[in-house]
Formats: sequence, C-alpha cells, structure tokens
Amino acid sequence: MNRIITISRQFGSAGHTIGKLAAQKLGIPCYDSEIIDEVVKQSGFSHEYIKDKSEYASGTNWFTSALNSRDLSGFSHQDEVWAMQCRIIREMAEKGPCVMVGRCADYILKDIQDIVRVFIFADMEDRAKRIVEQYGESPVDPVKRLKDKDKRRAAYYNFYTDIKWGASENYDITLNSAAIGIDKCVDIVTMLY
Amino acid sequence: MNRIITISRQFGSAGHTIGKLAAQKLGIPCYDSEIIDEVVKQSGFSHEYIKDKSEYASGTNWFTSALNSRDLSGFSHQDEVWAMQCRIIREMAEKGPCVMVGRCADYILKDIQDIVRVFIFADMEDRAKRIVEQYGESPVDPVKRLKDKDKRRAAYYNFYTDIKWGASENYDITLNSAAIGIDKCVDIVTMLY
Repeated sequence: MNRIITISRQFGSAGHTIGKLAAQKLGIPCYDSEIIDEVVKQSGFSHEYIKDKSEYASGTNWFTSALNSRDLSGFSHQDEVWAMQCRIIREMAEKGPCVMVGRCADYILKDIQDIVRVFIFADMEDRAKRIVEQYGESPVDPVKRLKDKDKRRAAYYNFYTDIKWGASENYDITLNSAAIGIDKCVDIVTMLY
Repeated sequence: MNRIITISRQFGSAGHTIGKLAAQKLGIPCYDSEIIDEVVKQSGFSHEYIKDKSEYASGTNWFTSALNSRDLSGFSHQDEVWAMQCRIIREMAEKGPCVMVGRCADYILKDIQDIVRVFIFADMEDRAKRIVEQYGESPVDPVKRLKDKDKRRAAYYNFYTDIKWGASENYDITLNSAAIGIDKCVDIVTMLY
C-alpha cells in the first residue's frame, strides 16, 4: 500500500494550490489535471467535456443524473468516464506515494491504499473573491457560479459514491483555508504524510 | 481580542486530552472542568447536575428540551445554567489567550474574541474502545452510551445555538483523532495558535 493524500475541495478554496505545494514540500507527485489528461487521452472525449463530466453531475439530483444520456444498456457517457477514471486513479496510485486532488480519489482508493483524506473549503465570500482573482470576471455572479458548482459536485459524489461530500465524518481532516491561511494548510497537510 | 482555541468534541474522541496537551505546549491555560466548577460555585447546583445540563439536552429533540422543567415564566433550570455558563465563559476568555474545551464556547465567543474553532471526532469503534479504557466497563454497551451522548449533545447545540454540531462548515478545522493520532492532533492544534 502506498501512502496517498487525497484532497477533496470546494471550487475556489485553493485546494489545488495547497495540494501542489504540499506535494512539492514532500517531494512526491501531485495529480490533478493529470488525471483529466489521461482520461482525455484514453477516451477520445474533449478536455472540456471530461473536466466537467469527471467531477460534476449534469443535474443537481439523482434523477437528472440517472437519466442523463443513457444508451439502451443503461450506461451513460458519464458512467464510462467514471469507470475509466477509477482505473486511471488506481493505476496512478500504484506507482507510489502522491497527492491526488479531486475526482473522488478518496472513495476510489479507500481500502486499497493507505490514504489520508483531506477536505478543503472556505467561506463563500472568500471563494468568490478568489475565483474572480484567479479566473477573472464572468457574466455570471461568482456566488451563483460557486453555488451551482457545489451543488453539481455534491450530486456527483452522491450518485457515484456513498460519501456525503464535505461532511466531516468522511474525512480525516477538514480545513477552512480562508480562516487558517494557505501556508498553514500546506504545513498541516505535509504533516499528515 | 484574545486568541482563543475552542475545542468541540465527540465524547471519547480524546478532545480533552488534545486540548490540555496543546495548551501545555503553548503555555496558556486550558479550561474544561474549570468551567463546570465555576458554574457549580455560582449556581449552588451539584457538580453532576451541571456537568450534564451544561452540554447535554434532556431529550434528543427540541420539543423535549423546550418543555423540560420550565417555571411559569418559561425559564428552565437548563436555561439558567446556559446563561450563567455564557457569562463565565466570556469572563474567562477576557483574562487572556486560552484553550476552551466544550460548552459551546465556539458559539458563545464568536464575534467577541479572536477564536480558532476546532472539532475533534473519531470513529465509533475507536471511541468505544477509548471510553472503556478511560472510564471502565459499564452495564450499558459503550456504543449505545456514545450514540445517546452524541444525540443529546447535538440536540443541546441545536437548541441553544445556530450551529449544527460537528458540521465541517462550522469549524476552521475538524480532526479525526483516531486516524491522525493524538500527538499529531496536538501538534496541529498548536500550529493554529
């Protein structure tokens, strides 16, 4: 079993930055968009499509997700992406210790690797400020964007896993990155290794 | 404003131990049973009565709590203990930086002190093992005891505060002490000061 730090995070909570910096400090790889790249390569779907389908439900409830573009066998494109992503995450984890950001790695690797499950979040106001700084202004209000992303990500988790996304009992540690500060979060995540 | 670490914790999760050790390392006081002692002194109620009433609802729902031994003015003994406890916690916090374990200090001190809100929990199995080690065997099954304590503590929080007890978004950090280990939890809590 490899020691793997899985980071699940709210959009705009700096989870990606914290994961990258912790991995750098530990001298181990951090997989985030690398997971998407690999699914894109193996599936032939576009990067944008996979980025969305690999972590967000099409609707915000089970029913919409369940009915979303299924073929006659009941298998949807999103199910296909899910199965591929599971295999790729398991293969990456087998290579050695690493940090994995997002994509339900906490659920996919549990019981088969020695994982530390981290959840990173922040208050809505701080996240809204951060996404505008990071990705620029958008015609859609940042709070509305964040609420939509949160809902769809939670629905995705609820559909494909038995984990309630963001509920403290499903993680070894949850961190409010805005309250604690990014540097301190990096130090704490590093300590968990 | 004083920097105060508030530790909310599940029964049997070593929250008290972690708070005491972190305070020792930081060279600041840790208030836990000291809060009860002060309420006992000021109220004239017994230690056992205050220990129970200062953190646990009599029933597990709002209705039972609301109807519990109220006088004609609608004020219950538990309300009296709550008001006294709020005052005592605020006074203790004014003395200087400290660690406060339990008794809704996170809620009572928010906006009036510079608080770091910690929640400590552990898996049921680990907590059951711990309470038997710490407090000995009891005629009641430890898992049943823990479930009852959890329910009554959550009900108490729901009745007196607007905090959902144990929900990650209400804390700056939540820690699974069994997964992370007590020593590492102490180090992390110390870092938050």
